[in-house]
Parts: sequence; C-alpha cells; structure tokens
Amino acid sequence: MNTRQLATWVRLTAVLELLPGILDSQLRRDSGLTHFEYYVLAMLSESPEMSLRMSQLAARTNATLPRLSHVVSRLEGREMVERHHGAGDARATYARLTETGWQAVREAAPGHVETVRHHVIDALTEEQLDQLGEITEAMLERLDPDEKLGPVYRRHDS
Amino acid sequence: MNTRQLATWVRLTAVLELLPGILDSQLRRDSGLTHFEYYVLAMLSESPEMSLRMSQLAARTNATLPRLSHVVSRLEGREMVERHHGAGDARATYARLTETGWQAVREAAPGHVETVRHHVIDALTEEQLDQLGEITEAMLERLDPDEKLGPVYRRHDS
Repeated sequence: MNTRQLATWVRLTAVLELLPGILDSQLRRDSGLTHFEYYVLAMLSESPEMSLRMSQLAARTNATLPRLSHVVSRLEGREMVERHHGAGDARATYARLTETGWQAVREAAPGHVETVRHHVIDALTEEQLDQLGEITEAMLERLDPDEKLGPVYRRHDS
Repeated sequence: MNTRQLATWVRLTAVLELLPGILDSQLRRDSGLTHFEYYVLAMLSESPEMSLRMSQLAARTNATLPRLSHVVSRLEGREMVERHHGAGDARATYARLTETGWQAVREAAPGHVETVRHHVIDALTEEQLDQLGEITEAMLERLDPDEKLGPVYRRHDS
C-alpha cells in the first residue's frame, strides 16, 4: 500500500473502532438497547405487519442466524419481540414486534437519529454524502459478494 | 434524514457490521490473532525500540486504557508483549514487543494486507480513495473532537 492508501486505511480503521461504540453508548444510556438490538427492532417496525421471517431479518441486519436468534431471545425476554409461525409455512419461524417493542423503538429513534446526524451526516457536505454512498456500495460488493446479507442496502436509491 | 442520506447511512451501517468480522476472521484463522491484537502488535512494531507508553498505545489503537490493558495482559501471556518501566519516569508503564511478538506480526501482515486490499483498496478508484480519506477525516473530527484517541491518523498526509 502506498502512503495515501495507508492514511485512508488507518482513518477508516479508526472510524470502525470509534463509531460503533458511540452509537452503542448513546442507545444504552438513553434507551437501554444495544445498537444491534435497536436495529433489529427498527427493521421489524418497517416491515409489513411488523413481522419478518428470521432468515430475512438476519439478512436485513447483516447478522448470522445464530447471532440474530440469540438477540431475538433476549428481546423476547423483555417482551419487545415474539416468535410465531407463518400461515403458509408452519416450519418457518417469524419474529414480530410487540406493542412494547414498538414503543421502545419509537422512543429510542429521535436520540439515535440525532447521534447519526451529528457524527456522520452533518460532518459531511452533500457531495461527500453522495461519494460515501458510492464508496460503501463498491465496498459492499466485495464484503457481501453473494448478497447473502443485507440486500436491503442496494434497493434504496436505484 | 432524506432518502439519499438514509441510503448512505444504511450502507455505512452494513460496512460497520461486515468489515470488522471479515478482518477478524482472516486473522484468527490464519494467525490466531484478533484484529485488535494484530493492531496493537503492529503499532508497537512501528514504534522506536518497539516500545510505547500504555497511554500512547491506547491512543494509537483508538482504545480505552482498561480495554488495552486487558489485551496487553493476554498478549503477555502468549509472550508477544512485555510490560516495563521507563528510564525517565518510573511510574509510567510501557509495553514492548518481544521477539515472539515481532515474528507473529511479521507473519500475519501479508495475509492481513491482502484482505484489506481485496475488500477495500482494490474495490475503489484512486479518486474514491482520496474522497474516503477526506470523508473519514471529517467524521473523525466529530467522533474524536478532542483528539484524545488516535491522533496518529491526522499525521499521515499533511
């Protein structure tokens, strides 16, 4: 790697180290949720009937099924999510947001959005945001070549 | 957030979820090190006499001192790092790379660099790499406003 590539990589590494911790701390402190828990609740809240098949939810949250299953169990214990079986396919397991879960994500959202806005969106110009959109898209083609995880991010602005 | 901002944010979240896992898996599999352990060893290997004060090492690795201390203890157990006291200030604790640690980082580096190259550097054009350098710099001014952590990333290309 040349010096400029290395400088960019060192900074990206610093972002990878710092940003998740900042998102996590704000949500834990203000809402008692990890960033991943929040993301799971948010993805369910945007789905039809607030329900998703576990495998779909795993894809939307860029998580493996075992990891997701563990977190959904924890959210079930807090009565924010419930597992159920689909009408069509009795073998498929779904996760559905409960009223408690919906309240939790609705109350947590403004603080989280404010954190994202302050640390990322407002730090960049409109042009940089567009550039970052294309850069992350190019990276995701390498990070997730088979689109196994999170195809959702390719749908937004096509 | 408008649709374009949201699309960019969703993709950046996916990168934050996926990239650390890929870096970690490759290093664990091929070298028996976590990405953070590798980073600690690499920072020491680039320092004068392969030694850094613990507080400086924490800054270079974007870590809190308790987290770093925990990892240095683990690396001490594997005889890759040793703690010592500075000549000038007996109260200051330093970490120094051992011969075993130097071998470990030297053997791990090519595979790690190859992974970074494949998933990030080669995915982007020269222009995008420059853009990402400026974007991450702008983000780090928000993520680390007091430059408490990792001032190293601002030194590279000025």
